[in-house]
Amino acid sequence: MDTFNDTGAGIDRAGKVSGLERAALRRVLALLGNPPIELVLWNGEVLGTGQGTPAIRLSIHHRGHLLRLLYRPDLYFGEAYSHGEVEVEGDLVKLLEYVDPLEQRGTRRRLWDRLKLKFPLLEPNTLARARTNIHHHYDIGNAFYQLWLDPELVYTCAYFSTAATSLEEAQQAKMEYVCRKLRLKPGETVVEAGCGWGAMARYMAKHYGVKVRAYNISREQINYARKRAREEGLDGQVEFIEADFRAIDGHCDAFVSIGMLEHVGKAHYGELGSVIDRCLSPRGRGLLHSIGRDRPMPLNAWIEHYIFPGAYPPALREMLEVLEPGGFSVLDVENLRLHYAHTLEHWLARYEEATDTVRQMFDEAFVRSWRFYLVCSIAGFRTGSLQLFQIAFSRSGINDIPWTRDHLYGRRLPDDHL
Amino acid sequence: MDTFNDTGAGIDRAGKVSGLERAALRRVLALLGNPPIELVLWNGEVLGTGQGTPAIRLSIHHRGHLLRLLYRPDLYFGEAYSHGEVEVEGDLVKLLEYVDPLEQRGTRRRLWDRLKLKFPLLEPNTLARARTNIHHHYDIGNAFYQLWLDPELVYTCAYFSTAATSLEEAQQAKMEYVCRKLRLKPGETVVEAGCGWGAMARYMAKHYGVKVRAYNISREQINYARKRAREEGLDGQVEFIEADFRAIDGHCDAFVSIGMLEHVGKAHYGELGSVIDRCLSPRGRGLLHSIGRDRPMPLNAWIEHYIFPGAYPPALREMLEVLEPGGFSVLDVENLRLHYAHTLEHWLARYEEATDTVRQMFDEAFVRSWRFYLVCSIAGFRTGSLQLFQIAFSRSGINDIPWTRDHLYGRRLPDDHL
Repeated sequence: MDTFNDTGAGIDRAGKVSGLERAALRRVLALLGNPPIELVLWNGEVLGTGQGTPAIRLSIHHRGHLLRLLYRPDLYFGEAYSHGEVEVEGDLVKLLEYVDPLEQRGTRRRLWDRLKLKFPLLEPNTLARARTNIHHHYDIGNAFYQLWLDPELVYTCAYFSTAATSLEEAQQAKMEYVCRKLRLKPGETVVEAGCGWGAMARYMAKHYGVKVRAYNISREQINYARKRAREEGLDGQVEFIEADFRAIDGHCDAFVSIGMLEHVGKAHYGELGSVIDRCLSPRGRGLLHSIGRDRPMPLNAWIEHYIFPGAYPPALREMLEVLEPGGFSVLDVENLRLHYAHTLEHWLARYEEATDTVRQMFDEAFVRSWRFYLVCSIAGFRTGSLQLFQIAFSRSGINDIPWTRDHLYGRRLPDDHL
Repeated sequence: MDTFNDTGAGIDRAGKVSGLERAALRRVLALLGNPPIELVLWNGEVLGTGQGTPAIRLSIHHRGHLLRLLYRPDLYFGEAYSHGEVEVEGDLVKLLEYVDPLEQRGTRRRLWDRLKLKFPLLEPNTLARARTNIHHHYDIGNAFYQLWLDPELVYTCAYFSTAATSLEEAQQAKMEYVCRKLRLKPGETVVEAGCGWGAMARYMAKHYGVKVRAYNISREQINYARKRAREEGLDGQVEFIEADFRAIDGHCDAFVSIGMLEHVGKAHYGELGSVIDRCLSPRGRGLLHSIGRDRPMPLNAWIEHYIFPGAYPPALREMLEVLEPGGFSVLDVENLRLHYAHTLEHWLARYEEATDTVRQMFDEAFVRSWRFYLVCSIAGFRTGSLQLFQIAFSRSGINDIPWTRDHLYGRRLPDDHL
């Protein structure tokens, strides 16, 4: 059982449970298909599910918390968990898979549609604050991310050739895979929009001999990326530019963006498409890699509020709105959803190893909210409420494109460059 | 030079060419980027392009034809060619690549946008006449298609592993590839919507041990398919049903549709999605294979009028409108545009070998209009005004999906079953 004693959130053992509260909770459990979850209320009363010993026990410490949870579970469950107002005994990922409000599967989808009618969810996205948003998340401090990411600090979905592949190998394999999808050739120029800590830019320069201009609006990430490039003697080949994708200029043979589109906001897809159209050479290729959806829906409200303000994972159809007006041709789309769930499992395991350090750097609420975010994301990729799409494209009508996918799989990944 | 003497379309050698006509033609050539085309007018006057000896010579026999061509080139060029009112000396495919009104590349796109302003093109599609439309094209007679398709009568894009692959091998390889994308297992049930002459249904039954219910509204094709299945002892495994996709009932483990979506019409994508949702098992997989576009645009008016009434090749984004509402998850999209250009080159070569027979079966105008259709299609796939998308999908949230594409390329295609 998680323990939490820092926020003064005691347990309201004297509070009564009304018949209405009990009925509401039973209804929620029924709507969720009576998953094996046991609810322990503030007065010690237990609402079971009648399915034998439940695997997961969820304790709610205050009546006030219950009402908020019933009203906006998508927003307040994460808050309550972060502040220790609810405790979970058992598998938190599994719990979130059961209650994932964005779950789309079969009957549950319809049930959740009904639930959403009862609890109007989800704020509209407020865009046009990209810089603030990115600072919020990515400038928490490199030291924090170094605790649980791979040594190259790749903060996007990895590619696991086999279940035994390590996170380090899988991140290298992902970068290799993207290079192959881009068909990079020595001497070519590449623009990377949203380059994180620069691992992909350095990989392309080092292993494919290309010149990279990599853009990012997070100063901490840019500084780190420059330092690493200098250390590796790649600073002549890779230029890190602290600027928004809208500032991208000059020309390039390949355009790549990994894990940025989620932060662009649907209202700006046209601008992104124009930027690609402006900078890509007539025979240029590109790749967009982004978290996505099977159908359009708002981001989970807690994640949007606390973790990724302004973020929006688009449906595949919406991603194509970036490429269609510019006259690009989609060559290949791959869904790597399960790879992201597995990447996050690696991150969570490393994170749990490092929670003592995280607690010293921040506080217990931070420890719990980042755990909740990672767990929430694993659940999302497992249930399919989140997808991960890689779209390879070229300019329309270019016939210098591969006939088959042989160039991707000619030799086995990820051994090539490790 | 093509010769044509059957329609009485003589050459109006006495007709004068006005300054306006000359100016209009020069403007069209300029808007097309002055391609190496020489125009021979009815009075013998030649308008060259100033780029040395032109590779292609286009003769226009009457002033009346010129005016129609200028007004609606997309519709009347095919008509004029079919009836011998224009003659082409040189590479007809190349000519159509130069003048392809749906071309999207770079500057030409903008030029053609300007042209389209001058010549308002393209009828609105009239839907709700699927049966008539399909009879128009597919009931011309099996004997006709047997003259130039492969022996299995596969009338969709093939898959060429290498440039040396024969058409027969490439059609087998395409069917094998689709089976792998569907991950068929012995004993499973498959629904095929729009089964043509039944080659795919028979392939799946024979090589993957599945039971297939295959739908088609063309009686001639269904009769042929049943006969072939009986001859091969597959009639216990494959049921051919003369009905529209809307009549599909029962359940299946896999849903496949190859080259039907082009004929469904955008207004009916929701119905198709509902049919898939209704019949696919909870762990079911599916594949849609269709001619498509980089961005939405109407079908060439001549093709729509004479060859495929009611057809509409959708943009990839529009194809996703079939799958998104039903809660399906896109796993893999592959663009096989160049494979279709090459498939059509094979068909055209065989067709040209068989024109004497075609002329006996029909007439010279038929010979020329089918040539024009094949040539037009090659040009479309070469210039990128046409695409070929294969979309593999599953129900949303199903985790029994492949981690990688290894299952597609484990052994080399197309040798497995040949």
